[in-house]
Amino acid sequence: MIGPLRNWLDQRAGDRATHPAIVCDGVALTYADLAARATAAAERLTDAGVRPGDRVAVLLENGMAFAVALHAVMRAGAILAPLDRRLHAPELQARLGAIEASHLLVPEHDDTLAHDVIARCPDCRPVVLDEPTGTWPTPVRPVPGMALDAPHAIVFTSGTTAQARGVVLTYGNHAWSAFASACNLGLDPDDRWLACLPCCHIGGLSILLRSVIYGTTAVVHRRFDPGAVNRAIERERVTVVSVVASMLERILEARGAESYPPWLRCVLVGGGPVPAPLLEHCAALGVPVVQTYGMTEAASQIATLSPRDALRKLGSAGKPLFGMELRVCRDGTGVEPGEVGEIEVRGPTVTPGYYASGAAATDASGWLRTGDLGRVDAEGYLYVVGRRDDVIVSGGENIHPAEVENVLALHPGVGEGCVAGVADAHWGTVVAAWVRLKPGTVVTEKELQSHVRAHLAAFKVPKRVFFVDDFPRTVSGKIRRVALAAGV
Amino acid sequence: MIGPLRNWLDQRAGDRATHPAIVCDGVALTYADLAARATAAAERLTDAGVRPGDRVAVLLENGMAFAVALHAVMRAGAILAPLDRRLHAPELQARLGAIEASHLLVPEHDDTLAHDVIARCPDCRPVVLDEPTGTWPTPVRPVPGMALDAPHAIVFTSGTTAQARGVVLTYGNHAWSAFASACNLGLDPDDRWLACLPCCHIGGLSILLRSVIYGTTAVVHRRFDPGAVNRAIERERVTVVSVVASMLERILEARGAESYPPWLRCVLVGGGPVPAPLLEHCAALGVPVVQTYGMTEAASQIATLSPRDALRKLGSAGKPLFGMELRVCRDGTGVEPGEVGEIEVRGPTVTPGYYASGAAATDASGWLRTGDLGRVDAEGYLYVVGRRDDVIVSGGENIHPAEVENVLALHPGVGEGCVAGVADAHWGTVVAAWVRLKPGTVVTEKELQSHVRAHLAAFKVPKRVFFVDDFPRTVSGKIRRVALAAGV
Repeated sequence: MIGPLRNWLDQRAGDRATHPAIVCDGVALTYADLAARATAAAERLTDAGVRPGDRVAVLLENGMAFAVALHAVMRAGAILAPLDRRLHAPELQARLGAIEASHLLVPEHDDTLAHDVIARCPDCRPVVLDEPTGTWPTPVRPVPGMALDAPHAIVFTSGTTAQARGVVLTYGNHAWSAFASACNLGLDPDDRWLACLPCCHIGGLSILLRSVIYGTTAVVHRRFDPGAVNRAIERERVTVVSVVASMLERILEARGAESYPPWLRCVLVGGGPVPAPLLEHCAALGVPVVQTYGMTEAASQIATLSPRDALRKLGSAGKPLFGMELRVCRDGTGVEPGEVGEIEVRGPTVTPGYYASGAAATDASGWLRTGDLGRVDAEGYLYVVGRRDDVIVSGGENIHPAEVENVLALHPGVGEGCVAGVADAHWGTVVAAWVRLKPGTVVTEKELQSHVRAHLAAFKVPKRVFFVDDFPRTVSGKIRRVALAAGV
Repeated sequence: MIGPLRNWLDQRAGDRATHPAIVCDGVALTYADLAARATAAAERLTDAGVRPGDRVAVLLENGMAFAVALHAVMRAGAILAPLDRRLHAPELQARLGAIEASHLLVPEHDDTLAHDVIARCPDCRPVVLDEPTGTWPTPVRPVPGMALDAPHAIVFTSGTTAQARGVVLTYGNHAWSAFASACNLGLDPDDRWLACLPCCHIGGLSILLRSVIYGTTAVVHRRFDPGAVNRAIERERVTVVSVVASMLERILEARGAESYPPWLRCVLVGGGPVPAPLLEHCAALGVPVVQTYGMTEAASQIATLSPRDALRKLGSAGKPLFGMELRVCRDGTGVEPGEVGEIEVRGPTVTPGYYASGAAATDASGWLRTGDLGRVDAEGYLYVVGRRDDVIVSGGENIHPAEVENVLALHPGVGEGCVAGVADAHWGTVVAAWVRLKPGTVVTEKELQSHVRAHLAAFKVPKRVFFVDDFPRTVSGKIRRVALAAGV
């Protein structure tokens, strides 16, 4: 057995006591301060009846209170379950029920959402971790180390498919993920990683965890604001920022023609490939874009594409990170390079399973079937072509919506596009596209169809194109393909 | 269970194929080359009857052949047992017997030591991994990932006490050690770490492992040569180098007054504290000294002292690395800050035990009793005061040799000193010192005694001082205290 892992915050309160742990709203909290606050908060949790192994749900937005809660729950030996405040009370109630949460951490201020959830969940005890005024009197009391396979958090997937599921992530999963990321991106003790993604999902949460594991600084934004991101890069000397492609586009729009400072060494872009024009724009401004393929079930990043390969391997998610094995399978066996199949991953960042469902996430050998379809080229670069469940079967051909969407995105008039199958009397299913044009542009259905035909086989050309102002989305901003198709 | 770890070399042959893995004698081997050679070598091991789990001993000096052997043994699923070529044939025979080695990798050229060992060990099959000429035709065949708790190597301690013991180190031990080091020292994908310590011991071996885990470059010297180290720093752009204090002194002597290039970002010094004059010399030349406390049983570094604390915390080994817990105990309970006791450590780098003896290295809670005595000051800095077995009990007082040695080292005439107890009719045991003076210096016993008296309590002052030209040493260069004391 590999020995337990010393508590991350105790570690950093010990060796980087005066280094900023969290910066939020212009206020910096050192590791010593954060440890003192987390110690006080952990005592309040224990007083409120939290016991080791309890599931403690957190209904807090990004910010200091969230960071303190994160560490307080760890210190109490409980399991963190961060909740998305963009969900409605009945959805939150279902999540609390699914994990049998014992406690719910709610904001200090009067909060309608918290009231609604508390009213619906009489078995879940609400706790307010109000901030003590002035300094925190409690001395930091070190807590025992945690076993690597002990559950740290239950993180709900923000996936576009079916019901959200509670993914158990262990202390070891997070630590390995942090390590794999460092092997790939490098690690500077003065790094400052900006979290403008919600910390209730793995993209944001992993920034807080990685930072305390490294002993570096997390700069936290309450919500995404493109102008605030640009200001933080300059004024807070942010070195790394995690976003999705549409956020990156808005950040660059807000920036104008000004280039970025040299200390911005990595913009990590998840949630799908970055379109070529945006990559070229980034290259011109000196923005080092690292595209990544990740998921909650693997504690965030699985593969990444380095900036130097970005234009050469357009649309690729790169190569697997340290320790991760990746294969593409069809009917249980690996396919040849270039062929499409389901992406399977294995490695120390992969979840042991879903909470309470009894379902392991992996097979007996540790392989996780991701539900994503992809191919690996002859040089070992991964291309994600879409979700298994999104495949359109039309006239006997398999069509991957993402492939068509990527081509649509190449058209200069297209702001955003989504492709799905719709019922057709003759073909059974045909390809349809929903397109949001860029402001002030006029493009016809015919123009878009011939644009796609110039790049792809005729059977992949959308038979119908709908022009829309916006899209139905999941709480984390992904387009809900099924809702679009159902609305036709 | 945490998933297996993808083979490190496959990883880097995949994502850093053209990056130099090993540089030795001016020749660089890329990760693709190293993987091709290791694949070919692993096939030869399998042909020679090596099976997963076999102990394969390696009687090779630092160099390319060692690096290839290291990876070939991993690819064959066997356990690596590197042997120290400075040992004599009967000592090597004892080690091969202790681990029931199935195979012994010997040099390509005619080698007397190998002949002697082979003659003594008929049950251990010798294998020559001769280098194919030209390119390596074998394509790299990826191998399965390894479980984190699978044994990777058996490394013999170079300790000064008793019989050397075979410490089992797992894949997880090495990976966690590499991670902890990166969290502390930072990690630059262009790092080049110089190995001039023998790779048969953990100090050198861990450089090869860390480098492949990070995907960075190891610069390997066949043996320690101070001038060659200085040249490598300049010409090979070495960024990190691992040494012990006496090596550092010789490197600086060979350098003269010239300062070091800015890319040399860390000189990691193990094996005991660096004397103040040497630290000041380093500061003047811009040499960033990171002192470390480590051991084979914890896969190398446990605690380190940063350059900025070096002069403020003279003699300290700093604070524990990421994931490591450290405590100082006497009679099984922790002592107060400042009090001396035995150092105990716990964490994911700690060995599961000693090979075949059936002895776990740790207690049931995972704590390793190091046999080292130390104290932790109020700010959490560790001071190692010596080996438990070295303590001199004189007139009812406990005296730690290292404390007296550190004071001796402060005297401008002292090159090196060693302190031990010797039998005395009146006191039972008294403190004695063996001193090697700097060339051309004259210092008397009385002068040294009053020097020590100026710093320490009277009972710690050596009653006898012996002037010597050199010391009896272990193969790894540590002074054999017991041999000195026995010789009186």
